[in-house]
Amino acid sequence: MTALLRAEPRLITAGVDLLAEAVEAQAADVERVQWSPPMAGSASDLALVMADQRRDSANALALERLLAVRAHLVDVVPAREALGLGRADVLHAGPPLDWDRASGPMRGALMGAAVYEGLAPDPDTATQLIAGGGLHLDPCHHHHAVGPMAGIVTPSMWLFVIEDRSSGRRTYCSLNEGLGKVLRYGAYSAEVIERLHWMSDVLGPLMQQAVRTAGPIEVTAILAQMVQMGDEAHNRNRAGTLMLLRDLLPSLVSTDAASSDIADAARFIGANDHFFLNLAMPACKLALDAARDIPGSTMVVAMARNGTDFGIQVSGTGDRWFTGPAQVPDGLFLGDFGPDDANPDIGDSAITETGGLGGFAMAAAPAIVRFVGGTVADALDNTRRMYEITLAEHTQYLVPALDFRGTPVGIDVTRVVRTGILPQINTGMAGKIAGTGQVGAGLVTPPPEIFPDALSALATLATDHA
Amino acid sequence: MTALLRAEPRLITAGVDLLAEAVEAQAADVERVQWSPPMAGSASDLALVMADQRRDSANALALERLLAVRAHLVDVVPAREALGLGRADVLHAGPPLDWDRASGPMRGALMGAAVYEGLAPDPDTATQLIAGGGLHLDPCHHHHAVGPMAGIVTPSMWLFVIEDRSSGRRTYCSLNEGLGKVLRYGAYSAEVIERLHWMSDVLGPLMQQAVRTAGPIEVTAILAQMVQMGDEAHNRNRAGTLMLLRDLLPSLVSTDAASSDIADAARFIGANDHFFLNLAMPACKLALDAARDIPGSTMVVAMARNGTDFGIQVSGTGDRWFTGPAQVPDGLFLGDFGPDDANPDIGDSAITETGGLGGFAMAAAPAIVRFVGGTVADALDNTRRMYEITLAEHTQYLVPALDFRGTPVGIDVTRVVRTGILPQINTGMAGKIAGTGQVGAGLVTPPPEIFPDALSALATLATDHA
Repeated sequence: MTALLRAEPRLITAGVDLLAEAVEAQAADVERVQWSPPMAGSASDLALVMADQRRDSANALALERLLAVRAHLVDVVPAREALGLGRADVLHAGPPLDWDRASGPMRGALMGAAVYEGLAPDPDTATQLIAGGGLHLDPCHHHHAVGPMAGIVTPSMWLFVIEDRSSGRRTYCSLNEGLGKVLRYGAYSAEVIERLHWMSDVLGPLMQQAVRTAGPIEVTAILAQMVQMGDEAHNRNRAGTLMLLRDLLPSLVSTDAASSDIADAARFIGANDHFFLNLAMPACKLALDAARDIPGSTMVVAMARNGTDFGIQVSGTGDRWFTGPAQVPDGLFLGDFGPDDANPDIGDSAITETGGLGGFAMAAAPAIVRFVGGTVADALDNTRRMYEITLAEHTQYLVPALDFRGTPVGIDVTRVVRTGILPQINTGMAGKIAGTGQVGAGLVTPPPEIFPDALSALATLATDHA
Repeated sequence: MTALLRAEPRLITAGVDLLAEAVEAQAADVERVQWSPPMAGSASDLALVMADQRRDSANALALERLLAVRAHLVDVVPAREALGLGRADVLHAGPPLDWDRASGPMRGALMGAAVYEGLAPDPDTATQLIAGGGLHLDPCHHHHAVGPMAGIVTPSMWLFVIEDRSSGRRTYCSLNEGLGKVLRYGAYSAEVIERLHWMSDVLGPLMQQAVRTAGPIEVTAILAQMVQMGDEAHNRNRAGTLMLLRDLLPSLVSTDAASSDIADAARFIGANDHFFLNLAMPACKLALDAARDIPGSTMVVAMARNGTDFGIQVSGTGDRWFTGPAQVPDGLFLGDFGPDDANPDIGDSAITETGGLGGFAMAAAPAIVRFVGGTVADALDNTRRMYEITLAEHTQYLVPALDFRGTPVGIDVTRVVRTGILPQINTGMAGKIAGTGQVGAGLVTPPPEIFPDALSALATLATDHA
């Protein structure tokens, strides 16, 4: 003790800057450590879950399974056939939701879906139909599927079929409609419905022929390349879309379709930088589904929003959703739109962040800041911060700007609760009034309270097990 | 003076680290400035050229013209037609060269060219033909053209035609053959010649139809996008190739060609990440040609290598070449090849660096280090260092990782001589034995002495003018 007092003081400070500054003013060495207390009320749950002897090996197994998945595009088929949807079945993004609690863009998309399927002659009639329980709503996630924004899947829509060749496990996602006035952003005007019909009449069957001829297309390999080419696979899918087009092109040309239809399809895909998003999403879901249902694992396996609620699912707690109110993103707006026009966060696309892409891979996509706001330094910081709450670095998605370090992957509920750092999502913004379409893009985080909720459930299970 | 001695010392040091370190050890403030004397023997020329009153405005005009160019792909035509080449005319990369001084890969490419054109039945006979003066050799640069590596252009080869829509000025480049055993790397085996015939019989005419139908394709706009997508447009042209394919696709599909030929062409282009290089190069030349022949301008308008000599041309000195021995690049090798297999630097592709891309834009393409060697930090440093020897930042080519700063453009002979910093080129490496093909890729600089030579010529002209 005497020796300690006699030596030059060397201090480590955590949290309180005032102390560090006072000591520094006296010319002593200070090592500042970033630290904050765990989220309020979570200390005892945290202790229980951290003490769960299954945790380390369960998380290691979850990661191993996640990283072993190689997603392949193997087919394109109507949802009716792929998922066995009945005439009035409609899937939507996020955790479960009913019409009463649905936000504007979700309502708009459901109205458009009913018109598209011929269940209602016009949007007004559709409203009455849906409000009266005439559609059977269910989350995409409950059917091995994901959908961007409103995430609507109806029986006549064609789906990408993504398969892990070693396990045979499959996931599904609709074909991307483009930007602006589109169903997934809650628009339901005649042009929207017309485009959806062209997609099911022309694009879907053409893609089916091309994919079946081209053979499985390695989506995971394309994602790995994208991260070398400035895409983060949520709001930038430019390189990915171009690579898909390149891979499908020779067989697209060789289909027996009319060359004008082939040219239209090529033009449609080539003009939509986001087309590949609908492959990135089910590829991430495929990897995360492999990591589900491992007792003791604290890894998040889904983050999804329905425009009203933000929900997560955790490997160790099965299919249970932990939900809280979806937040409004902060970002850049199109045209005359502003913050007051934006709906709260919506869509299954946060599956990309859950899988180590999107906001977690922003360091690989500095140009994204021109779309979602912020600076290039912010983009790098976002990725770096996510290492604090994740279990590993992705072995396939390597970030050149970080000297080819893998993206942060495997969100750990305990780390989120302990550090208070929330997953960083970058996302499109839908207009809050049904029928508007896209109003911007920006950054958002989940409601903090869902992580202590999930931790509490994990703590109960840990206690039951012990 | 007394006040100066009484005050705390504050020092600025340049060059001599020992002094700075000694002062720092005494706890004084030192500001280290990077400085080195100008290149040996160039001081008086530098003084004359710096004093040339035309210099500032001449360079400003050169830059203005360079940055105003918008390159468009307007046509694809045989060289015979585009450049009026006669049967035995052959263009090559770099400054003027004859057979006696030609390196292995240049000889190999010339031999292959003679066989391809039916001027000789086999490579041995071709050797005798060329050594006897049976081919008329001339640099691409003397015909508004550029060619990668050996840069061979013969009458039957099809060329991209690039045009600046406002001035009508045009430049030309051959279609890229792919990697490995290809003519431009000095290979001349049967497969090489066969591929060249397929390119002139099938690919060229198909591209012509597609480009004429698609209308002008904005090459400058694609280059601007590439820099956002990890390409530097010399050794990485992945995103560029994909964007070209996307833009040509609808009209490619609509040509009257056999769908198997269209599929073959799509497969050929899609499988060659370097296909777009042959558009990036003439686009850069087009911009730089606009900046030629401005009296008093010290801006470099061409850097080119023929495998033996490295040459530059400068705006203020017209068509005169300043040449020195080409250096051997330092980099990464394919398969079992090593440094002893590499030919000295070859090709017109350093026109990309001259135009603010390639090695000058490496900060935009960190993944390039996996192809040419070095670290990501080196890639960033290369771009940052080039600002020291250039006149401006490019207004179209913005680097996300540098907070969207424009790439360094407009190499200034006076700055190179004054700082001793040489232009940084990244390049492919050809095997030094004729027929080998590519052996690697790496980094290289021009022979330093060509810059004082150019400066001396500028000084003579400045004196004549004054």
